[in-house]
Amino acid sequence: MDPSGVCQPLNMGGKAFVFPKESENSFVILTAQPTKPLKAFTVCLRVYTDLTRDYSLFSYATKTQDNEILLFMGKTGMYSVSVGGADVFFKPPESSAPTHYCATWESSSGIVELWVDGKPMVRKSLKRGHSLGAEASIILGQEQDAYTGGFDKNQSLVGDIGDVNMWDHVLSLEEISTVYAGGTFSPNVLNWRALRYQMSGEVFVKRQLWP
Amino acid sequence: MDPSGVCQPLNMGGKAFVFPKESENSFVILTAQPTKPLKAFTVCLRVYTDLTRDYSLFSYATKTQDNEILLFMGKTGMYSVSVGGADVFFKPPESSAPTHYCATWESSSGIVELWVDGKPMVRKSLKRGHSLGAEASIILGQEQDAYTGGFDKNQSLVGDIGDVNMWDHVLSLEEISTVYAGGTFSPNVLNWRALRYQMSGEVFVKRQLWP
Amino acid sequence: MDPSGVCQPLNMGGKAFVFPKESENSFVILTAQPTKPLKAFTVCLRVYTDLTRDYSLFSYATKTQDNEILLFMGKTGMYSVSVGGADVFFKPPESSAPTHYCATWESSSGIVELWVDGKPMVRKSLKRGHSLGAEASIILGQEQDAYTGGFDKNQSLVGDIGDVNMWDHVLSLEEISTVYAGGTFSPNVLNWRALRYQMSGEVFVKRQLWP
Amino acid sequence: MDPSGVCQPLNMGGKAFVFPKESENSFVILTAQPTKPLKAFTVCLRVYTDLTRDYSLFSYATKTQDNEILLFMGKTGMYSVSVGGADVFFKPPESSAPTHYCATWESSSGIVELWVDGKPMVRKSLKRGHSLGAEASIILGQEQDAYTGGFDKNQSLVGDIGDVNMWDHVLSLEEISTVYAGGTFSPNVLNWRALRYQMSGEVFVKRQLWP
Amino acid sequence: MDPSGVCQPLNMGGKAFVFPKESENSFVILTAQPTKPLKAFTVCLRVYTDLTRDYSLFSYATKTQDNEILLFMGKTGMYSVSVGGADVFFKPPESSAPTHYCATWESSSGIVELWVDGKPMVRKSLKRGHSLGAEASIILGQEQDAYTGGFDKNQSLVGDIGDVNMWDHVLSLEEISTVYAGGTFSPNVLNWRALRYQMSGEVFVKRQLWP
Ligand SMILES: [Ca+2]
Ligand SMILES: [Ca+2]
Ligand SMILES: [Ca+2]
Ligand SMILES: [Ca+2]
Ligand SMILES: [Ca+2]
Ligand SMILES: [Ca+2]
Ligand SMILES: [Ca+2]
Ligand SMILES: [Ca+2]
Ligand SMILES: [Ca+2]
Ligand SMILES: [Ca+2]
Ligand SMILES: [Zn+2]
Repeated sequence: MDPSGVCQPLNMGGKAFVFPKESENSFVILTAQPTKPLKAFTVCLRVYTDLTRDYSLFSYATKTQDNEILLFMGKTGMYSVSVGGADVFFKPPESSAPTHYCATWESSSGIVELWVDGKPMVRKSLKRGHSLGAEASIILGQEQDAYTGGFDKNQSLVGDIGDVNMWDHVLSLEEISTVYAGGTFSPNVLNWRALRYQMSGEVFVKRQLWP
Repeated sequence: MDPSGVCQPLNMGGKAFVFPKESENSFVILTAQPTKPLKAFTVCLRVYTDLTRDYSLFSYATKTQDNEILLFMGKTGMYSVSVGGADVFFKPPESSAPTHYCATWESSSGIVELWVDGKPMVRKSLKRGHSLGAEASIILGQEQDAYTGGFDKNQSLVGDIGDVNMWDHVLSLEEISTVYAGGTFSPNVLNWRALRYQMSGEVFVKRQLWP
Repeated sequence: MDPSGVCQPLNMGGKAFVFPKESENSFVILTAQPTKPLKAFTVCLRVYTDLTRDYSLFSYATKTQDNEILLFMGKTGMYSVSVGGADVFFKPPESSAPTHYCATWESSSGIVELWVDGKPMVRKSLKRGHSLGAEASIILGQEQDAYTGGFDKNQSLVGDIGDVNMWDHVLSLEEISTVYAGGTFSPNVLNWRALRYQMSGEVFVKRQLWP
Repeated sequence: MDPSGVCQPLNMGGKAFVFPKESENSFVILTAQPTKPLKAFTVCLRVYTDLTRDYSLFSYATKTQDNEILLFMGKTGMYSVSVGGADVFFKPPESSAPTHYCATWESSSGIVELWVDGKPMVRKSLKRGHSLGAEASIILGQEQDAYTGGFDKNQSLVGDIGDVNMWDHVLSLEEISTVYAGGTFSPNVLNWRALRYQMSGEVFVKRQLWP
Repeated sequence: MDPSGVCQPLNMGGKAFVFPKESENSFVILTAQPTKPLKAFTVCLRVYTDLTRDYSLFSYATKTQDNEILLFMGKTGMYSVSVGGADVFFKPPESSAPTHYCATWESSSGIVELWVDGKPMVRKSLKRGHSLGAEASIILGQEQDAYTGGFDKNQSLVGDIGDVNMWDHVLSLEEISTVYAGGTFSPNVLNWRALRYQMSGEVFVKRQLWP
């Protein structure tokens, strides 16, 4: 597999990536729009899993920093957002249903927001002044400890993931409400309705289990 | 009793099989439509029990594999779906009410879905590429460890079971919602409204206790 | 007091028997319609108590079997229905409100149903083929261990009981829903709206506390 | 202070007595209508407190019996109603909101009813045949162990009390529902809308905190 | 920074102060309207935090009394209101959502009210007859143990605070309901829509996370 290969964008509306088994070699690699270094971002996605251990939701690695952006569920139910290798923690309410997440960060204040099913957690901050590396390996299903590698089956996702979108700025409250409700705002880094991706290992594209 | 005997199909609409006592010899044997080996299936049924031990919901055995299809409630509240002798596990919410189950499997991906009261559990997979044996002994009320036998009273059902239907393909989300709500989709393997069955032991056909 | 004495039927609509104190000599004896031996029955009643110990809800004794019919709350919250001296057990949800019970039994299958506040518990069976003795002593407020006697204050009811009706057949789902909602179906063994009864000890007829 | 002194009746509608601090000398003494010995009564009132210890809600003492009528919250959440020095106990649901109580008693049966926020507890009985002494000292905020005295700060009320009304008979279900909903039935022993009272110590008349 | 410096009032409607990190030097100092010594007050504000330790919500210090007014969350979930150095305690229901508080005090009775999300806690009293010092240092984000100082990072706020208003009298029930619902009553000590403030350390003005 060549993660730098060019692939056609596909409309994934109504579909999900399904990882039905624990593994250390099943994943999806996403190709971002050509971008300059980011001073802010919003990532939204929906996940359905019954894992009780750690797992990665979104792993954005550069050649020098494997946790350049990382959305991660810890085993104690603490959710972490990492930027540039630093971490902040959130304690969302537990849920056994498909769950929608949006994470935002801006360099000017360092403030991180996490929205769970359309509700904001308390804001935290980290890496004020940082710029995100532009050449990134963006992986679903595995957590990178190296650029497109360093996978650990004990941090892999088992379940469904979909509606993955990414913007180069912080969405407003109203925009996040709309995204949570299923609306769209022409995401300019990753666009679920025109997604360039390559699948590796035991991962399937199936109809979404959520409405 | 001759499980290979021909019997007239009966409309069981509004009715249920009632197993009012624990036993190792009360059961119902169902006769499937003449079928070729299956590459996929959906089985739906409704069960009402207050058992706190293990019990079988649907036991489909072939001469070489007693757990060719098995829907089974474990004693810890873990629900298992077996295909071709392999198992995956689900943790549905606990319920003391009559509960509707749909289980699906397809050979191409091996993905198993379990729907409990119209809600999907997280998908798992097993036995990718397998074909289900066509000549089967399909039993309600007992778990088979041999073709039409090998019963264990500690795995028998005590309670009501009804609305048992089976298809040779995976139903869509919309179809499963309709089935859960009481609608029908001409099931082509087992059809509750034209059911060929034989009862053995202390089992009764009574009006359903659910609406 | 002469339990065989003839008394006028009274309309108890909107009223309840109140047992405000624990005792071994306060009770109500009910006179049934002249009946032949029963092959089935439905008994419905409403009880309001804050007892945490065992107590009897309905005690129907013959000269040879004190537990010919017995509706009984055990101390662990397990409810039992006895017919002809045999018992089956049910685990209704706990309630601190006035609670409506209907118990049914039929000789042909032995199936016992228990409906609590209009919801059916899982069916059980006992005494298939049995006939209920017709000459019975029917007592509210005490549990009989002998014909019109053998009372135990630790099994007495403290609280209110009302809407006691009995039929010589099994009511349908629709009929039980109607009875639970306050409707009536000309009960032919005991009729709360034309009840023959005698009170003994500290028991009072008062307005119902339920709507 | 002279508890036998004559004072003008005041309309306390929309107001409450507030005891903001624990004490053994803050209380309100109420003057009842001239009455003959009572054979029945209903007392209703509303209380808002966050005490977790014992406290008195309504203390009606005669020269020979300090607990002639006593509404009292025990430390285990057991509520007691005392008449003529005897006690019965009730277990209302716990509440952290302002709570409305009505207690009734009638001499003919001895039956005591307790209504909490418009819902009846299970009836009990005591002091059948008793008559309540007419010359009484009626105190809010303290529990009397002697006529207008014998106070204990550990039984004092800290919080708000209001809507105190008393009748010389047992109200019907409909009347209690109306009183709970804020309606009135010309109370003839104590009337919150024409209340004769004297305050002593740190007690204030303030707007009600409940609607 | 010069807390006595004059600054222009700003309309903070729809905005919040965000303290994204624990610190001992991030805070906001508010400038009150020129006032005479206060005999009563109402302070309302909204806070969103996931702290499980102690923290200050509103710290109003004079040169002689650092806790002249202090709204403070204790680590056990007990909320305290301090006036003139004395404390009363309240136990509000736990909440993980943004929470609205109004605290009132009047000198004439000493009564303190606390309203949490529009619901009154049980009233308490303290410092009857006291007058509040007029020359005050009013701080958000830190708890003062000295005039504009004596900060402790273990009592700092991490999270959002907004809608801070203060009056020189006790608001009525209706007024507090209106404030909770987002209405305004020309606050005459501190006015969120015309707020004079200076920020120090890592604190940001951001859009509110609550509606
Ligand atoms: Ca990593
Ligand atoms: Ca890793
Ligand atoms: Ca087996
Ligand atoms: Ca077996
Ligand atoms: Ca007995
Ligand atoms: Ca007995
Ligand atoms: Ca006393
Ligand atoms: Ca006392
Ligand atoms: Ca301080
Ligand atoms: Ca301090
Ligand atoms: Zn002072």
